[in-house]
Amino acid sequence: MSATRLIDCLVTTDALADVFSDASVLQAMLDFEASLARAEAGAGIIPARAAEIIGSSARADDFDAGAIARAARDSASPAIPLVAALTDRVHAADKTAAPFVHWGATSQDVVDTALVILLKRAKPILAADHARLASALRSQSEAHASTVMLGRTLLQPAVPITFGLKAATWFSVAEGAWRRLARACDDAMIVQFGGASGTLAALGEQGPDVGRALAEDLGLAPSLPWHTDRGRLAAVVTTCGMYTAALGKIARDVALLMQPEIGELAEPGGGSSAMPHKRNPAGCAIALAAAARLPGIVGGFLTGMVQEHERAVGGWQAEWSAVADAVQATGSAVAAMAAAIEGLQVFPDRMRANVEAMGGADLAERATLVQRAGSGGHAGRLEDSLGSAEAIRRKLLFSRAGDNA
Amino acid sequence: MSATRLIDCLVTTDALADVFSDASVLQAMLDFEASLARAEAGAGIIPARAAEIIGSSARADDFDAGAIARAARDSASPAIPLVAALTDRVHAADKTAAPFVHWGATSQDVVDTALVILLKRAKPILAADHARLASALRSQSEAHASTVMLGRTLLQPAVPITFGLKAATWFSVAEGAWRRLARACDDAMIVQFGGASGTLAALGEQGPDVGRALAEDLGLAPSLPWHTDRGRLAAVVTTCGMYTAALGKIARDVALLMQPEIGELAEPGGGSSAMPHKRNPAGCAIALAAAARLPGIVGGFLTGMVQEHERAVGGWQAEWSAVADAVQATGSAVAAMAAAIEGLQVFPDRMRANVEAMGGADLAERATLVQRAGSGGHAGRLEDSLGSAEAIRRKLLFSRAGDNA
Amino acid sequence: MSATRLIDCLVTTDALADVFSDASVLQAMLDFEASLARAEAGAGIIPARAAEIIGSSARADDFDAGAIARAARDSASPAIPLVAALTDRVHAADKTAAPFVHWGATSQDVVDTALVILLKRAKPILAADHARLASALRSQSEAHASTVMLGRTLLQPAVPITFGLKAATWFSVAEGAWRRLARACDDAMIVQFGGASGTLAALGEQGPDVGRALAEDLGLAPSLPWHTDRGRLAAVVTTCGMYTAALGKIARDVALLMQPEIGELAEPGGGSSAMPHKRNPAGCAIALAAAARLPGIVGGFLTGMVQEHERAVGGWQAEWSAVADAVQATGSAVAAMAAAIEGLQVFPDRMRANVEAMGGADLAERATLVQRAGSGGHAGRLEDSLGSAEAIRRKLLFSRAGDNA
Amino acid sequence: MSATRLIDCLVTTDALADVFSDASVLQAMLDFEASLARAEAGAGIIPARAAEIIGSSARADDFDAGAIARAARDSASPAIPLVAALTDRVHAADKTAAPFVHWGATSQDVVDTALVILLKRAKPILAADHARLASALRSQSEAHASTVMLGRTLLQPAVPITFGLKAATWFSVAEGAWRRLARACDDAMIVQFGGASGTLAALGEQGPDVGRALAEDLGLAPSLPWHTDRGRLAAVVTTCGMYTAALGKIARDVALLMQPEIGELAEPGGGSSAMPHKRNPAGCAIALAAAARLPGIVGGFLTGMVQEHERAVGGWQAEWSAVADAVQATGSAVAAMAAAIEGLQVFPDRMRANVEAMGGADLAERATLVQRAGSGGHAGRLEDSLGSAEAIRRKLLFSRAGDNA
Repeated sequence: MSATRLIDCLVTTDALADVFSDASVLQAMLDFEASLARAEAGAGIIPARAAEIIGSSARADDFDAGAIARAARDSASPAIPLVAALTDRVHAADKTAAPFVHWGATSQDVVDTALVILLKRAKPILAADHARLASALRSQSEAHASTVMLGRTLLQPAVPITFGLKAATWFSVAEGAWRRLARACDDAMIVQFGGASGTLAALGEQGPDVGRALAEDLGLAPSLPWHTDRGRLAAVVTTCGMYTAALGKIARDVALLMQPEIGELAEPGGGSSAMPHKRNPAGCAIALAAAARLPGIVGGFLTGMVQEHERAVGGWQAEWSAVADAVQATGSAVAAMAAAIEGLQVFPDRMRANVEAMGGADLAERATLVQRAGSGGHAGRLEDSLGSAEAIRRKLLFSRAGDNA
Repeated sequence: MSATRLIDCLVTTDALADVFSDASVLQAMLDFEASLARAEAGAGIIPARAAEIIGSSARADDFDAGAIARAARDSASPAIPLVAALTDRVHAADKTAAPFVHWGATSQDVVDTALVILLKRAKPILAADHARLASALRSQSEAHASTVMLGRTLLQPAVPITFGLKAATWFSVAEGAWRRLARACDDAMIVQFGGASGTLAALGEQGPDVGRALAEDLGLAPSLPWHTDRGRLAAVVTTCGMYTAALGKIARDVALLMQPEIGELAEPGGGSSAMPHKRNPAGCAIALAAAARLPGIVGGFLTGMVQEHERAVGGWQAEWSAVADAVQATGSAVAAMAAAIEGLQVFPDRMRANVEAMGGADLAERATLVQRAGSGGHAGRLEDSLGSAEAIRRKLLFSRAGDNA
Repeated sequence: MSATRLIDCLVTTDALADVFSDASVLQAMLDFEASLARAEAGAGIIPARAAEIIGSSARADDFDAGAIARAARDSASPAIPLVAALTDRVHAADKTAAPFVHWGATSQDVVDTALVILLKRAKPILAADHARLASALRSQSEAHASTVMLGRTLLQPAVPITFGLKAATWFSVAEGAWRRLARACDDAMIVQFGGASGTLAALGEQGPDVGRALAEDLGLAPSLPWHTDRGRLAAVVTTCGMYTAALGKIARDVALLMQPEIGELAEPGGGSSAMPHKRNPAGCAIALAAAARLPGIVGGFLTGMVQEHERAVGGWQAEWSAVADAVQATGSAVAAMAAAIEGLQVFPDRMRANVEAMGGADLAERATLVQRAGSGGHAGRLEDSLGSAEAIRRKLLFSRAGDNA
Repeated sequence: MSATRLIDCLVTTDALADVFSDASVLQAMLDFEASLARAEAGAGIIPARAAEIIGSSARADDFDAGAIARAARDSASPAIPLVAALTDRVHAADKTAAPFVHWGATSQDVVDTALVILLKRAKPILAADHARLASALRSQSEAHASTVMLGRTLLQPAVPITFGLKAATWFSVAEGAWRRLARACDDAMIVQFGGASGTLAALGEQGPDVGRALAEDLGLAPSLPWHTDRGRLAAVVTTCGMYTAALGKIARDVALLMQPEIGELAEPGGGSSAMPHKRNPAGCAIALAAAARLPGIVGGFLTGMVQEHERAVGGWQAEWSAVADAVQATGSAVAAMAAAIEGLQVFPDRMRANVEAMGGADLAERATLVQRAGSGGHAGRLEDSLGSAEAIRRKLLFSRAGDNA
């Protein structure tokens, strides 16, 4: 069964919809509780037997996600009914263990950490698609290092470039943005654990040790509590916005070059023998839809960061859906563009013809300037005038893409 | 089983999650196809037998929503795999009927009309909760027509008002915004039907008649095609934003007045005998989360309205999720605030005490002005100075709330 | 001297920059104070002599806008230093008149009313440019009622339409959005007058009469106070967003059709004999820049509507710049598109050639359907197949444009 | 004379309005042209005499900003009329020098580099105010290391904390966000220089050397062209959004604690002997207004990043105002909060009284847990239970603030 809802079919992928599915979200919250109990048992704070029972009770299959979702509205938090339901299950197994569920933690600890766990599951999915995209862009750039095409500014012809340079620029834009996003994700792989006060006061001097053990058990980094410091999550969401915008830039370029009157590129798929360049830019449409969706999610997240005191009323509660939406739309965009570029058809003859139709070599920048300075001279072959400068530029774009991040 | 996903537990309700569930979305698209076939059979354009078979094949239960969602990514449209799947089912029943599926329509016709059908299902859910909220606000206002409390500007004490006036202002803000939203929904209850050209060229002179019959069959109004004229949908989304902001204003006020040091209001639920005013403003948090979510959705929708030619690449594809998100968050907010205001506890003694602590009758505006003009005089009882002006104002707020819409 | 700042050269016009210039903003606030004094003198509340002196002192040239702007930061309101400066001037003329400056009003009364006065000055500027645009679109549509061109979906060729229909659709999109905006502006032409309490308590029973006289003096409509009911202003800002999106849609279409490989349109200006279709879409760029700017302004305004109690801390203070930015960017867009469409060059031969290159009459919708149903037949001339349906549609688009508003 | 416009009085400061004033913007563009000429003369590409004349002609005072702003609309770029005006002045001085103005550059080179020059002027202004804020927060935190106050979640009392910890958290939130912003600004201090093609083709093999010399002359770093790679600018704008949100969080907390019923803090200024805690949170209002403004600007910038080909139509043209607005609103917020925190009055007695009113030591987390586990025991003094955990936490917040960036 697919995890993607039909209404969201263009703004997620099955793999990411699965990450944010009920079973996955439930398990992430339960993993926090189980790890917490183990860490506290290890420190001698709660009985080892309690930790065992909590751990064996923390299986998503045994919980009713719908009931928890409904009950969450009473407290504006899914953690409270989740902890209650877990406590019930533990109590049924061994009532002496029940008081030790969620010991010393606050509801935001479980909700925030669960979100981080979901991000950790999502990141490799995005990374794999980005790697496909980056690799495909590099291949296209190398294959077309000498393929001359029009540069275009304000949708009007400018001096010629090579398609190799254009693809290298796409690579650089996407790679730089991806490095920002990947770094933001890695920075956000931290546990949330502060207790009600943000000082772990309930655990006395053992607080920091328990925090470290908890983080290790979950495969996350320890951290000072960040209940109202949403900077790292904000970095994830804003870099999703920047990365999706980068993909949107590529998608718009491809869709424009697929116009049959231009006919320089085609997405894989469809097409007909009669009109070989007639293909819908479906992947581009998906990426552009994501690029239209992200700015608002980013804006909403930033709005919500103005949080009251030690836990917000409203701003924090808006975050779960915002992060889930941002990550899924981003993943939908990169999956679409990876497939589009991998299968991209390039028509060098049309590129050349479009350059010639606009004036050919006379368009070249050097020719224009030479003329302006009144020194006469002749323009020469386009390939020659472009060749060396472009080759250097292309190389630099690949080697320095990270510098822009 | 609940339709609400856990990750979205604070930004939708079960009733609205059900409207945007796979079964509901599928059926809305299939209803379009069935009605279209009936309308065209009625006009003699397709065989009556074909319409019958299409109608009896258009049952959501027989389709695989997940497969359609996945296939939608190939064409950037859920309509194309839906029509293909329906055609297959019709073909299995009677292969001569299959060519008449979706006759003369374009994929945007089915997608847009389905969205309108979903809006039509959603509106009464919102309306019922709004009616509860409006009624509760009116009751609170009447019950507290003479309950004096502090007016507050920039979170500092200003001249006293009555809680009756405050509740009347809330009513007026919410009612005005609701009327805008309700009108926008009603205006948007139109069929989309233009065919590939937007001129129904395939149906010749019968196009408009078929359009009218189709609309009637679906319980919608006929309309000129609006493939790239998204004004009516934009009005729905922007008024959702305005209405949710209005609810957010009420929610923020209530949450502020629930602070125990102020202690003038309490949401129903929780509480303890030791601290009667200690209740979490859970309903307010949900409404405020929606108010943080909507502005970005509105912004994204407006961004997407810059559509290319006769159907956009990206802007249109972003709309389905945006409208679904907007309506669900709006409905989540009004459901939360209706419950919060219906069960709202008001503490007139605390209101009075807070006024007295700030200086009592000397705070009154008239007293201040009288003093400024140096004419001496005495302030008198607060109730007296507030009484008549407030009563008039309250009455006007109820009678003219619609005027602001 | 130009009122436009260089940094804002593409997001305003001289005429609108002048509306929001220091002199204009100052005078709008002073007009409120002068009118208020006259209205109160008329009701016998303040001395007639005081009103005269206040009126003659309320001249923008005599005030230091910069000093007021700086001082505004101390109170988070420009009204407080403005009233202080006016009181000083009145005091210098007649110290007995000074206490009657701003009598019974609150600082939000002057700030909000001043904003409305500025909107009232801005609206006819926008209206004049919209009228030029609408008229130009109608002329283009009529001149090209039979000019066949490609319909295009997802930037790929679809069934042919006429340029007359396309221009009529542009007209309908823009006209519908304009009607919404014009109505929202008209609805917002209301005075703000509530005093500190929002009940005009200081004026006793004369409050409503003074409010009416004040409104009349300013050429505005009277209103219940709307200190925290920002619905009407929100409608102005959101409809600016919708209208600018409509202009952006036209601008994107024009810019796309100006691509030399398509070559169907050209903005006036520039160009060369060698490449007649080579013109930069400068007007389109300006409209599209506005369309990129507005969604965020709208989102920010909606965010700010979640206002605390009787006057917000933050949300209200963000409004002045937001409304000024929204109106100026909108006016910049419509001025640009009015000029672009008035001088638009249309190249019917290229339109025809692009249709033929994609398959000509065989593209027509009817031909495709006829073929699908296996009934053979022949497509006929494109003009004939488009003629009647398009003519009807065009007529309806012009007659019903308002219906979409 | 003040550079601040009255309409923008709450969203900029005089110092920043001056950075984005006509004179400053003009000079930034002219500096690019003068430096370019010097760099090219140094490389022997243009005559030394031409560079001298260009340099001596590039004085902002000699240009008419208004005329350039108006003319910018014809080409959707301020660079084109600026270069034309400079060429005129150079021609008047020595007509042989005129052809060498702007040699090898494209209009986006001058516009983008000018924006970077303005950012470079703005950053130290922001940095100085941030340093004041950070220092004031640290002082407050140290002075109140043992001042017990209520923790508050969802605006309801939670376990007690110290004001020292709260101020340390504010420091950490602001410092982390500032480091992100400062780094993004530093990364963006790069010259834009690519010529029409982005390959400096006009300069042949000397392109990179000229680029380096130009950058050095301007005090910027050299860079590959970034005409359509807006990642670094996007990072500036998004981190402005994150930093302003951090300031908004502090501002909201302060405004809430200034409510007289709570009365724990007061901004400096105003106040009265009768009501010592009655002060308007004017600085907070300004910071919150900025926090309401930024998310939309960020969203708009991200939207504009979906740029077409080698220079966008619309997206790029929207950037100048967006960046100027973002930086000014950010600077307005930090200036306001620096002043607010420097002069912040803290009322430890009220903090203590509010804790006691809610139950005092019994509120403490450890007490609650001890009770839940049924082990009895006694809560002890609040200071003791908070002391050590808080002290450790505070120290870490100061030492690790950068880690969150």
